[in-house]
Amino acid sequence: MGEASYLWSMVFSSTLLENAVNEFSKLPGIGKKTALRLVLHLVKQNSSDVLQFSDTISRMHNEIKFCTRCHNISDKELCNICSNLQRKQDMLCVVENIRDVIAIESTQQYNGIYHVLGGIISPLDGIGPEQLKIDALLQRVEKEEVKEIIFALNPNIQGDTTIYYISRKMKAFPVRITTIARGIAFGGELEYADEMTLAKSISNRIPVENYIVSGQ
Amino acid sequence: MGEASYLWSMVFSSTLLENAVNEFSKLPGIGKKTALRLVLHLVKQNSSDVLQFSDTISRMHNEIKFCTRCHNISDKELCNICSNLQRKQDMLCVVENIRDVIAIESTQQYNGIYHVLGGIISPLDGIGPEQLKIDALLQRVEKEEVKEIIFALNPNIQGDTTIYYISRKMKAFPVRITTIARGIAFGGELEYADEMTLAKSISNRIPVENYIVSGQ
Repeated sequence: MGEASYLWSMVFSSTLLENAVNEFSKLPGIGKKTALRLVLHLVKQNSSDVLQFSDTISRMHNEIKFCTRCHNISDKELCNICSNLQRKQDMLCVVENIRDVIAIESTQQYNGIYHVLGGIISPLDGIGPEQLKIDALLQRVEKEEVKEIIFALNPNIQGDTTIYYISRKMKAFPVRITTIARGIAFGGELEYADEMTLAKSISNRIPVENYIVSGQ
Repeated sequence: MGEASYLWSMVFSSTLLENAVNEFSKLPGIGKKTALRLVLHLVKQNSSDVLQFSDTISRMHNEIKFCTRCHNISDKELCNICSNLQRKQDMLCVVENIRDVIAIESTQQYNGIYHVLGGIISPLDGIGPEQLKIDALLQRVEKEEVKEIIFALNPNIQGDTTIYYISRKMKAFPVRITTIARGIAFGGELEYADEMTLAKSISNRIPVENYIVSGQ
């Protein structure tokens, strides 16, 4: 947002205002100037709206849970997705985090359930398999008689490492293991695609009759 | 922030999460995706930090006041700037809003006091002199025996109209009326300056000896 707050420090005539700006600027991607804009917006709102804002945030933090089965964020012990028996209970989509669940749910195209790893294997960041919900995934695959695991991880080295590690551990189980397709994004242009993506999109080419049936 | 939230709606597995995201996305310039990022950041913080965040906001809104003299935001009846007797009490800087006070204070170059108009005259937006703290300014000039009024309004038609309107009303008082200099910004380039700014910077040229004394 082009903030020059590192060049000068803001001088406030009100400690209450300054404290509120400081709280907002602790949030990721929010600098002092943006924080001030947000706080001055709240100053102009009526009391009930501001009370609702602060109450909703603190209530969310106090009451929110993580689903004991898939580790998605949830209001109850079991999240809405896991407890929905309309969804295929033997198809697990393995994702890195909660944002990915929301992204996939928003497509309204997936009818299975999830497993949130809470990260991906990244030795350089000190994240190994034991920091992630991988053991819990293996237990689920065994106990819940899962038929298919779909990896929906970001296409990079850490993602591929995580897929490789988990799929080796799964060898003992009769489960189909797939990954979301990598290729040229819809609306993307061939000439700007990197070589890796383009190469994979050719080697993993699909018959046109499948494409027309599944593609919308 | 390149948000495509108008194209798709987010599907949440948690109402608590959804409510918190909705509250954040009511703030100006915060879309759904940014709101989600902020809320998920708060989810990861410990309870005392989140409590401090929500308490600081609601306390700020409940307790904040506007200075009865200059209409700046304040913790008390009279703001820190007005009640600081080290500052020149007979020099008023007239600004549009609180953000402008903070910007000028942050330069640490101004040693007078302020008067916050709460907007500028803009007939197209339905804002006339009676919606602004102009009468209060005239009363201050009379009662407080003000020696100089410095207009620090944004350089545009509304700003100039406001200056013209107020300075006409001031004719009866023995007060010096000035406006902040308009010209080429420090670090700016002549060839990219608009004609108006460049023309004003030439007609309002200053002797080099003054420039060297006052410029840093």
